[in-house]
Amino acid sequence: MNQDQQYEQAAWKKVVHEIIFEADTKLGKAFDVGLIILIFLSVIVVILSTLESAEEKPFITIFYTLEWIFTILFTIEYILRLMVVRKPLRYATSFFGIIDLLSILPAFIGVLLPGSGSERLMIVRTLRLLRIFRVFKLARYLSEATALREAFFISRHKIAVFMTTVMIVILIASALMHVVESSAGNEDFESMPSAMYWAIITMTTVGYGDIIPITVVGKATTAALVLVGYSMIIVPTGILSAEIAGATKSGSAISTRSCPSCTAQGHDKDAEFCKKCGEPLSNHLHDSK
Amino acid sequence: MNQDQQYEQAAWKKVVHEIIFEADTKLGKAFDVGLIILIFLSVIVVILSTLESAEEKPFITIFYTLEWIFTILFTIEYILRLMVVRKPLRYATSFFGIIDLLSILPAFIGVLLPGSGSERLMIVRTLRLLRIFRVFKLARYLSEATALREAFFISRHKIAVFMTTVMIVILIASALMHVVESSAGNEDFESMPSAMYWAIITMTTVGYGDIIPITVVGKATTAALVLVGYSMIIVPTGILSAEIAGATKSGSAISTRSCPSCTAQGHDKDAEFCKKCGEPLSNHLHDSK
Amino acid sequence: MNQDQQYEQAAWKKVVHEIIFEADTKLGKAFDVGLIILIFLSVIVVILSTLESAEEKPFITIFYTLEWIFTILFTIEYILRLMVVRKPLRYATSFFGIIDLLSILPAFIGVLLPGSGSERLMIVRTLRLLRIFRVFKLARYLSEATALREAFFISRHKIAVFMTTVMIVILIASALMHVVESSAGNEDFESMPSAMYWAIITMTTVGYGDIIPITVVGKATTAALVLVGYSMIIVPTGILSAEIAGATKSGSAISTRSCPSCTAQGHDKDAEFCKKCGEPLSNHLHDSK
Amino acid sequence: MNQDQQYEQAAWKKVVHEIIFEADTKLGKAFDVGLIILIFLSVIVVILSTLESAEEKPFITIFYTLEWIFTILFTIEYILRLMVVRKPLRYATSFFGIIDLLSILPAFIGVLLPGSGSERLMIVRTLRLLRIFRVFKLARYLSEATALREAFFISRHKIAVFMTTVMIVILIASALMHVVESSAGNEDFESMPSAMYWAIITMTTVGYGDIIPITVVGKATTAALVLVGYSMIIVPTGILSAEIAGATKSGSAISTRSCPSCTAQGHDKDAEFCKKCGEPLSNHLHDSK
Repeated sequence: MNQDQQYEQAAWKKVVHEIIFEADTKLGKAFDVGLIILIFLSVIVVILSTLESAEEKPFITIFYTLEWIFTILFTIEYILRLMVVRKPLRYATSFFGIIDLLSILPAFIGVLLPGSGSERLMIVRTLRLLRIFRVFKLARYLSEATALREAFFISRHKIAVFMTTVMIVILIASALMHVVESSAGNEDFESMPSAMYWAIITMTTVGYGDIIPITVVGKATTAALVLVGYSMIIVPTGILSAEIAGATKSGSAISTRSCPSCTAQGHDKDAEFCKKCGEPLSNHLHDSK
Repeated sequence: MNQDQQYEQAAWKKVVHEIIFEADTKLGKAFDVGLIILIFLSVIVVILSTLESAEEKPFITIFYTLEWIFTILFTIEYILRLMVVRKPLRYATSFFGIIDLLSILPAFIGVLLPGSGSERLMIVRTLRLLRIFRVFKLARYLSEATALREAFFISRHKIAVFMTTVMIVILIASALMHVVESSAGNEDFESMPSAMYWAIITMTTVGYGDIIPITVVGKATTAALVLVGYSMIIVPTGILSAEIAGATKSGSAISTRSCPSCTAQGHDKDAEFCKKCGEPLSNHLHDSK
Repeated sequence: MNQDQQYEQAAWKKVVHEIIFEADTKLGKAFDVGLIILIFLSVIVVILSTLESAEEKPFITIFYTLEWIFTILFTIEYILRLMVVRKPLRYATSFFGIIDLLSILPAFIGVLLPGSGSERLMIVRTLRLLRIFRVFKLARYLSEATALREAFFISRHKIAVFMTTVMIVILIASALMHVVESSAGNEDFESMPSAMYWAIITMTTVGYGDIIPITVVGKATTAALVLVGYSMIIVPTGILSAEIAGATKSGSAISTRSCPSCTAQGHDKDAEFCKKCGEPLSNHLHDSK
Repeated sequence: MNQDQQYEQAAWKKVVHEIIFEADTKLGKAFDVGLIILIFLSVIVVILSTLESAEEKPFITIFYTLEWIFTILFTIEYILRLMVVRKPLRYATSFFGIIDLLSILPAFIGVLLPGSGSERLMIVRTLRLLRIFRVFKLARYLSEATALREAFFISRHKIAVFMTTVMIVILIASALMHVVESSAGNEDFESMPSAMYWAIITMTTVGYGDIIPITVVGKATTAALVLVGYSMIIVPTGILSAEIAGATKSGSAISTRSCPSCTAQGHDKDAEFCKKCGEPLSNHLHDSK
């Protein structure tokens, strides 16, 4: 293999890399959109194949065939990714590398190790949907996803403080209800884990109704608890609202004009002078000044 | 037909157009208010006619008569709209044009094709309520409706990112519960669509209680899932709060006064000097200065 | 009756008026606090008297006696209010005047018209709790109550737009489920009012579970509906957050300092110069400047 | 005991005080982290010991042994705290002092007063979890916990106004439903406390479904009530969002840079000039200016 061949191969790899890893070129975007459609279709097939009627004659063959078409396509894609990436090992051990592998593995394992256990394994294929997150590298979602992640990151300590408080309230409430209700013979509150399950289902306002208090004290405690839980949704909402408001401020209340003198951006919508260099800004509205 | 007649007809059309399409004149507003009352009444008749007692003797005749009165009035309105509008086809194929047609069609189809199927068709008449949205062209709601639409429009990418995340969480949770619970013999989680229905009902905190986990692992997963779902209501709330805060800022905390010198607007409610040119602002409150 | 007596009586009325209508004097505050305690106690008696054990021997006498003590005290208060107020008729027909009357009327009607119907009437006495709202005239709650009312008032058109949208979604969803589920023989969706009750209970995420979809299409519609309902809680939250943020801005992000030169208030926490007259503000923090 | 010994002892106390009461030194942080782990483990043991299988042979001994290890460790810690603190009585009667005592007391009482009642007492040990709050003295959580407390403190009057309104709505709704439903023979609404329990469970959107309306009027009232309850979650959310936004503003949208000339802080992230003295700010980003 001479240098020319090597260079040619490198160029080929570069082109494929741009298509399947980037989204800046037209072909790259087309590949991403196609991949998303393929992922959605394969997940729908996985979902439908769990239906009872899917085990009947015509459907079982169709789903089996479709599943193998998806698996082969994803396998080709996985091998291509491994080939064109500069550090294959780093990719293979990355979050998306593992997800890509888990997307194709169940079908092969099902062939090698047939049995009832492997059937359950099929469900791992729903993890394919995680690959959808790749779409967020598309330009228009990137900044939004980044802003959301940032808002979460900034609020992480506040959320930690809040979640600790929630956990403690849930535990105290469970302990109280466990004592009150199990004394009255309510078997649903006999163990603490069961009482905690009830407390979480109740305080998040899901309220299945499978475990309910029967004593008067238990009902009063429940009423007090849900009022606390009700007001608890306020705190994290307020925190994140404030954080996101701070993080997205530059996107909504602020004009998109740039200074004609120094090209600075992020001016308030009613600003007349550049906040960076003091030069007057052009305004779309007619002013009598 | 000479030019005078043509001109007369055009004038007549213009007047009717102003009444039924606009809301700026007194008669136009009166028509809108009357139409809203008519729509409400017709929808109430549709709702009441589904009651069991509505199939008894005196009521069935009353509802039948009322329904035809509403249908005839709406038909006249629809024909008028078609006649006075400049481009009848564009109106007929617009959102409101189709809704207007669907409001009157079921009654006529019921006559032409009698049978049990046409009875179910009657329910299409509830779509009449969509015509209520026309009220938002009234001045005082217009800006609010626009602001809300704008806030949604600005946040659409963020909402897309968020909804994708929610969908993936729901699918992963369904797959997990499907494996865990159906192994334990819980038939409610036998199929993925059923598990997904459960996941949506649970994560949105509706919690019917018709499908519930029975295994310890399933209950623990549910508890974790509802805590995630609970915190998930925070993100979109925060996003929209921030967006709406940005979009409506000029409407609440800021005064409507304009500078007497440079006519600039958007001053803080307690500002005394124009933020644009520094000239003093007139203030409604008596100042000791 | 000479002028002196008249003057004396007027002075007496003025003092009593200050005590029971105002909350600025020490005695006025004491009266308000005492009244609140009395209202709470009387409401607790009303609640407890509906318990089954309250119809037994010792309790029925206690509750009967207590009820008459409260009624006599409230009657004295009502007569005093009528006597000292300048325009008794205006007070008697005002919101609080009617509530005050409804607080005492049931007991007297119970004596005049004994029977099973009057017993149910007793529940009207819970309206006494509405009198608690009077406490909001106390200085520290007044501004908060005003701010909340203002925030609601400012957002009323937006809330109207939103509620109309919610109503239309509920109606369309009810109509859809009525057609889908009643075709499948689900009697709970046989009538539109019943389907609307279901839609409201579901979309507000209460989810009793007494009415649930049984068809696959119905379950899919429900899942879509709750996701819509879930996102619908966002919009009004965002609206009000933004409005309240605007209305309360002066209470949180803004310092309580007043300008030493012109006594103007409402400066930003980090302001160094008065926004009204330009004079420097004193700052509690030590500055190196 | 001579002065040297006294001094030595004081130094020893000071070191221990720094370790177990402060979190500024390395050893102090390590102690806090260790304590948190110990608390979590002991709470998990308390939770697991309520399970049915925990009363079987091998587990009962393990849990008993573990419980005594935790109790002895916490007892040593409690005694140390009492010894090194300057005012032991003030500590013993403080919130955390009482919690610390309650963490160890149940085990000793169980030995002194054996019986079935003391078993229930064991649950008091879950209060140990409250000690976790001590972790918030760690630097990175302190400001967040303070900000949250502050936001709550600032909004306390508004929350009081809101909670009073909620309580009155719940009581009026309960009274109404009590009259409507108990007339129709629905025993669940026979007493006011039961109707209030239903109203709270419904308005907070928990919706167990154990108590439901059966009359048409009752269902209509419920539908109206949940729509009110639904909109009621908005108000406190909006209040706290606004307050927290005001309180945390300085933490998110504002840079941490201080003016090199006048050391003023709180500049916008994109500010180039000091808002206080007009001198240019140093900026981390490369500017073309």
